[in-house]
Amino acid sequence: MRTARHITLPKGFQAAGVACGIKESGQEDLSLFAAQDDASVAFVTTRNQIVGAPIQYCRQRFPRGRGKARAIVVNSGCSNVCTGKAGLRDAESMAKRVARHLDCASEKILVASTGLIGRRLPMDRVRAGIDQAAGSLSRRNDAAALRGIMTTDTREKSALVQGRLDGREFTVAGVAKGAGMIAPSMATMISILNTDLAISPTVLAAGLRQVIDDSFNAVTVDSDTSTSDIVAVFASGAAGNATLKKGTKAFARFVSVLSEVCGELARAIVADGEGAEKIIRVEVRGAVNRDQARIAAKAVADSPLFKTAMHGADPNWGRIAMALGKSAAEVRAETLKIRIGGVLLFSRGTGRRFDEQSVRKHLAGTDIHVQADLGIGDGRFTALTCDLSREYITINADYHT
Amino acid sequence: MRTARHITLPKGFQAAGVACGIKESGQEDLSLFAAQDDASVAFVTTRNQIVGAPIQYCRQRFPRGRGKARAIVVNSGCSNVCTGKAGLRDAESMAKRVARHLDCASEKILVASTGLIGRRLPMDRVRAGIDQAAGSLSRRNDAAALRGIMTTDTREKSALVQGRLDGREFTVAGVAKGAGMIAPSMATMISILNTDLAISPTVLAAGLRQVIDDSFNAVTVDSDTSTSDIVAVFASGAAGNATLKKGTKAFARFVSVLSEVCGELARAIVADGEGAEKIIRVEVRGAVNRDQARIAAKAVADSPLFKTAMHGADPNWGRIAMALGKSAAEVRAETLKIRIGGVLLFSRGTGRRFDEQSVRKHLAGTDIHVQADLGIGDGRFTALTCDLSREYITINADYHT
Repeated sequence: MRTARHITLPKGFQAAGVACGIKESGQEDLSLFAAQDDASVAFVTTRNQIVGAPIQYCRQRFPRGRGKARAIVVNSGCSNVCTGKAGLRDAESMAKRVARHLDCASEKILVASTGLIGRRLPMDRVRAGIDQAAGSLSRRNDAAALRGIMTTDTREKSALVQGRLDGREFTVAGVAKGAGMIAPSMATMISILNTDLAISPTVLAAGLRQVIDDSFNAVTVDSDTSTSDIVAVFASGAAGNATLKKGTKAFARFVSVLSEVCGELARAIVADGEGAEKIIRVEVRGAVNRDQARIAAKAVADSPLFKTAMHGADPNWGRIAMALGKSAAEVRAETLKIRIGGVLLFSRGTGRRFDEQSVRKHLAGTDIHVQADLGIGDGRFTALTCDLSREYITINADYHT
Repeated sequence: MRTARHITLPKGFQAAGVACGIKESGQEDLSLFAAQDDASVAFVTTRNQIVGAPIQYCRQRFPRGRGKARAIVVNSGCSNVCTGKAGLRDAESMAKRVARHLDCASEKILVASTGLIGRRLPMDRVRAGIDQAAGSLSRRNDAAALRGIMTTDTREKSALVQGRLDGREFTVAGVAKGAGMIAPSMATMISILNTDLAISPTVLAAGLRQVIDDSFNAVTVDSDTSTSDIVAVFASGAAGNATLKKGTKAFARFVSVLSEVCGELARAIVADGEGAEKIIRVEVRGAVNRDQARIAAKAVADSPLFKTAMHGADPNWGRIAMALGKSAAEVRAETLKIRIGGVLLFSRGTGRRFDEQSVRKHLAGTDIHVQADLGIGDGRFTALTCDLSREYITINADYHT
């Protein structure tokens, strides 16, 4: 599915990534994702109450999280968070500079920043970076554009699905960054998605809302919620389809494809979680309702004791029961069933005899499946998380301000 | 303040600790804390919905968490959690065996267990251990009794305050265990407290309720809440004071002393947190109310990113702002002030210039003080936590079932 082109494969989009000196490493640290004409855009932002200047800026420009836009400029290495009014002016100035290059109103430019909190952006370098990026926009710059949004990520993350609608080929493509400070509260990473389908901002926003809970909001690396993050989807209309309407089969098809792309990006984020060696699906069913299933799954996925047990490949179902029990979801020991790798370890209030070798073999792998059936109702939710390793501590104790 | 006698220093109490073979290590693993006559007792138990058989047993015997009792028997190495009806019978049988030795009704015996979840107790050994412990009850066995309740604890934890009331000397003494699976939800460790004051169960329970939130419920090691834990206070009346009444100066004096002992035990638990190298006070003031202050302080104290920054002695106030912002408490960047070691790092929405050397020196120590003034109301709360180290991972990834 991977090709040299990812985010620019949908028709009507370009990208660029440059190194302008925000990161000391000399790596790419500024990316521009642009539509060739005005595109529909919809985005969701973090639920953290302390938000960066770029998030404030985007919310001011698009109070309902949707509209017509041309581009998003993203820098890494400095998040422009807790930088006061000066920081807000910096975000605005980034938008203006991009707009001048694209010959559009600055209201049509989104801004995102990721990296250290509390530092001002080195605006001389940022301005030079924007000039360079705008001058090199192309449909073949995906690799550099992907690297330009990375912080502690160890790999580029992209996903792509193509299909046909109205006899025309369409593409939904996405890139994402995020390795720590990831928790299931709306939009806790940066992800840019492009599609060439024709779709209004309102319908695009409806589609994004439908997929976000089961993808980006279902992942957790460390239960911490970033101050900066945003998921934005652009639709150029260049595929030439009839404009998508809500409640139609075509819309359902788009939502399904968008969900696939977002799900793949969410999995990539967890797999690249700071220090992660394993990706763990925590599937809760039988909860009172879907909300309670989410709360229960999240309690397990966030539990340090559970995550260290998974790191140690230990079938310690007691820690799963503990985490479910401490959650705000209704849980009863008598009706609870716990499975790891499909093997029943706990039911009717007690541990079962089980094939320990088979479970240990599953846990020794890198793709772990934990199931908890609460046995009460019909609510289901699957959270994604990773194990907690010494390497997480190393990365985060040594990531200095 | 430490003497060879801790928990048995209040008049009217005895203790014993024996090694009966529950722990593979051969360390002490069963302790008995007994009053010489019927004593008042009050206790609080975990809020986890999955609770061990001993907790179920205690709740059945004392539905209001108070009454008259003679003793508590505590074993370590196996928590008797998720063991079904058989586990409940085991807890009951422990109480009965103790009662036979003390020549009292089994309803007067509390039971607590800590250790692995999901295993049945080796009852032959437990019975032999109870016989041995009952036979060796004494006012001079404190060291063994303290060791008998430990699991991953690296040190014995005890605290003791003496004072005078009505011209008579009185003592409040306590012991505690707990190093992981500690979070501020009611009673998340095992702690036994003895006092020789005369006080009814109802008034004793009122005193315990008053102190628990600021002591045991204010500490967090890993945000996980145990299925097993209990804080129980016994009052023998042997000091010879007039029975304490609520709303009196004497009661206030008792509450103050109890608070001091519980606070000291809570600090000892955090200082001995799994892998902990530092103890961190997270003081929140200026919240809408006390509940919100608690929520905000807990969000910081539980944040893995904050805890790893403290481990790395990094004045990363951005992670403090992030953790406050993600909490359910009302937080505004504009009114927020953040201090570390008394030095102002953040106010009016931005980072301040600060004496970095002085802050780094404070962070290099083992007793860290973080303050966040939300600048909104009068709510205050101080949470206690520890740093998150590689050693936490080692302990918990390698603690096998």
